[in-house]
Amino acid sequence: MNTENGQLTELTTLGRVAQRAGRQIAVLTTEQKNRALHAIADELQAQAAKVLAANALDVDEGRRNGLSEALLDRLLLNEDRLNALADDTRRVAELPDPVGTDIEGRVLPNGIRLVRRRIPIGVIGVIYEARPNVTIDIVSLCLKTGNAVILRGGSETLRSNMALVEVIQAALEREGISADAVQYIDNPDRKLVSELLRMDEYVDMIIPRGGQGLHRLCKEQSTIPVITGGIGICHMFIDASADLAKAVDIVENAKVQRPSVCNALDTVLVHRDIADRFLGPMAERLTNRGVELRADADALPVIRDAGHDVQPAGPDDFDQEWLALILGVKIVDSVEEAIEHVQDHSTEHSDAIITNDVSNANRFVEQVTSSAVFVNASTRFNDGGQFGLGAEVAVSTQKLHARGPMGLEELTTYKWIAYGDGHVRP
Amino acid sequence: MNTENGQLTELTTLGRVAQRAGRQIAVLTTEQKNRALHAIADELQAQAAKVLAANALDVDEGRRNGLSEALLDRLLLNEDRLNALADDTRRVAELPDPVGTDIEGRVLPNGIRLVRRRIPIGVIGVIYEARPNVTIDIVSLCLKTGNAVILRGGSETLRSNMALVEVIQAALEREGISADAVQYIDNPDRKLVSELLRMDEYVDMIIPRGGQGLHRLCKEQSTIPVITGGIGICHMFIDASADLAKAVDIVENAKVQRPSVCNALDTVLVHRDIADRFLGPMAERLTNRGVELRADADALPVIRDAGHDVQPAGPDDFDQEWLALILGVKIVDSVEEAIEHVQDHSTEHSDAIITNDVSNANRFVEQVTSSAVFVNASTRFNDGGQFGLGAEVAVSTQKLHARGPMGLEELTTYKWIAYGDGHVRP
Repeated sequence: MNTENGQLTELTTLGRVAQRAGRQIAVLTTEQKNRALHAIADELQAQAAKVLAANALDVDEGRRNGLSEALLDRLLLNEDRLNALADDTRRVAELPDPVGTDIEGRVLPNGIRLVRRRIPIGVIGVIYEARPNVTIDIVSLCLKTGNAVILRGGSETLRSNMALVEVIQAALEREGISADAVQYIDNPDRKLVSELLRMDEYVDMIIPRGGQGLHRLCKEQSTIPVITGGIGICHMFIDASADLAKAVDIVENAKVQRPSVCNALDTVLVHRDIADRFLGPMAERLTNRGVELRADADALPVIRDAGHDVQPAGPDDFDQEWLALILGVKIVDSVEEAIEHVQDHSTEHSDAIITNDVSNANRFVEQVTSSAVFVNASTRFNDGGQFGLGAEVAVSTQKLHARGPMGLEELTTYKWIAYGDGHVRP
Repeated sequence: MNTENGQLTELTTLGRVAQRAGRQIAVLTTEQKNRALHAIADELQAQAAKVLAANALDVDEGRRNGLSEALLDRLLLNEDRLNALADDTRRVAELPDPVGTDIEGRVLPNGIRLVRRRIPIGVIGVIYEARPNVTIDIVSLCLKTGNAVILRGGSETLRSNMALVEVIQAALEREGISADAVQYIDNPDRKLVSELLRMDEYVDMIIPRGGQGLHRLCKEQSTIPVITGGIGICHMFIDASADLAKAVDIVENAKVQRPSVCNALDTVLVHRDIADRFLGPMAERLTNRGVELRADADALPVIRDAGHDVQPAGPDDFDQEWLALILGVKIVDSVEEAIEHVQDHSTEHSDAIITNDVSNANRFVEQVTSSAVFVNASTRFNDGGQFGLGAEVAVSTQKLHARGPMGLEELTTYKWIAYGDGHVRP
């Protein structure tokens, strides 16, 4: 536990304390955890004035520092938003508790009873940006699953986050639960993020909630398993057999309904046989909604001839997560070419085929390995709420542990339990 | 794909080629994969002379370089061992194929049919030491689960491994499967391991099979998710209520049956109330089997007074994976003290309680979070074969993805598939 110079660092102490508290909350009953969630919701509303005052200071400072209106809005808390957060916390209490569930159980030929049981992960480190709502959100999901948590939020929200953590810790203590189960790293020094990422003795999982830079940093530096994801370069292939009216609706929905999120559409691939009939109506619908089209050399003249605005796609335009009202458009000759394009350019988040051909649908579903593959539906459905998970911690695009929307189950792991009666191995 | 100096490195090319081949084997039918497994087994026996000749050169060089007899034995192949490897490969063909299994499937309230389906992980990197059998072993398990593999074996077995990889690739080609699905890094430069660990664009999972140093290296340097494990500091607590005759049998089995492996016992914790009655018979049994006992200050005089050899435990002796006929012995006052010792010293591999007290058994099972927890049974059962998984890739002690023995299912991941009929998100 000692660092090289013989001193416990502050962060090591914090990790050790979180691990110890984690052992306590891991064995709480569901009833105890739900009572604590309600206590947090109640305390949040009782202490609203204090939290809003702290948040106002963050917003003022953010404005003075020239934060964009979009960022200021993400940072802002008000009475309504606090009430919504309290309601969300109470809803987490209503969700089923995965901890203690047996995944499988059987008697081995030698008579040993073997059970595989869900247990909490332990200590979860969460690194996030200027969104104070994440503080409440992640704490309720971790508490529900019996995990301790170490939070590191953006420096722009430090006062808001500290006020929220005080609320949480007060509620935990009132319920007789160690407040150490929720830790916050309040030192803004960036070196502490790197230090956190190497505390594998105390921290079992890192969840980065932020942009590509943060995910890359965690991948590069962490000795702790990291859940990467949240970056979506999403594709939709319009097959020659597609119902073109439905296809226009789905493309519009996937691109326009909420363009700033990771499951929004980035590139549409159109089968050459229907390009003439599809691209005009699609361009009309999208340009009316303010979408800028960037087309490859084949699609460009078709859209232009139909009388719509379009730009030539640049060399990197098919490797962009736009997060804006921009859409790449490319003509392909076959479902195989579409699949190959997706395999080469997708971030494995959400990809779709619009088709009426069973064999093409199967081929696309089989060969596209994204966390969610859609047939005749919008990519916008890749979401914990939409998939009926009741909650969403993150959307994973990596291959291990969890893929796609992560709910409460994905905040658990398992252990094997073997009950013998003096069994020895022959 | 280009490195900074504008050149494709050899390893990057290898990764890209493996990824491409992985897409092909991911969609093979179970029948095709099983035929390939049989082809590998047949080729292994047909090319036995060539493989054994290559292996003889490795063994000769190892002997000249002063490798221990134990290491030389791990390195050695002979006709019998090759036949056993061929049989193992044919047995993998008999196991059920997890790929394509639906983990869950349901219709969402909006009519979308949602399915969660097992798929291959993609490309798996395996770093291992001087055991040529691992080459065949890991390739069959990866092939069965539709994964491409990049192998990096110890330099002491380079010739044997190259001969085995040739056998595998010839068999794959004969079955019309791209030989690129099995890649071997034959350049002994250690820098290539570091380079492999950072190829997250092409490699989806790293499995280190070796000692603590290799696991630490992978954790430290890898930007790819790593399966860590295989290091077991294993405990057994003998409760006051234990059947002491069975307890002696189980301790003996866990310590002596195969002392060089990770699920062998390292520390026995004995309840003070039965120390007088238990330690004498235990010491007698173990010292007769050649076990050296290292006892804490309380246990030492009890064992000595019973007339058996015992050493005082040194300061680090309760943090050792012995892998040898040595056992730490410590007296504790309660199940709580035993649990706390396990929590502080275990590597979360295999820990056991021997008890007849239901409440103590439950407490131990609930609070000890090791990958396998045993009640009245030997820790030696923590094994893929013993747990009925049919195969074992590794034993994981980390929290994410898989814990304990990893079988074929643990070489798969999943994707969500959503079938709509023109669904858009409101």
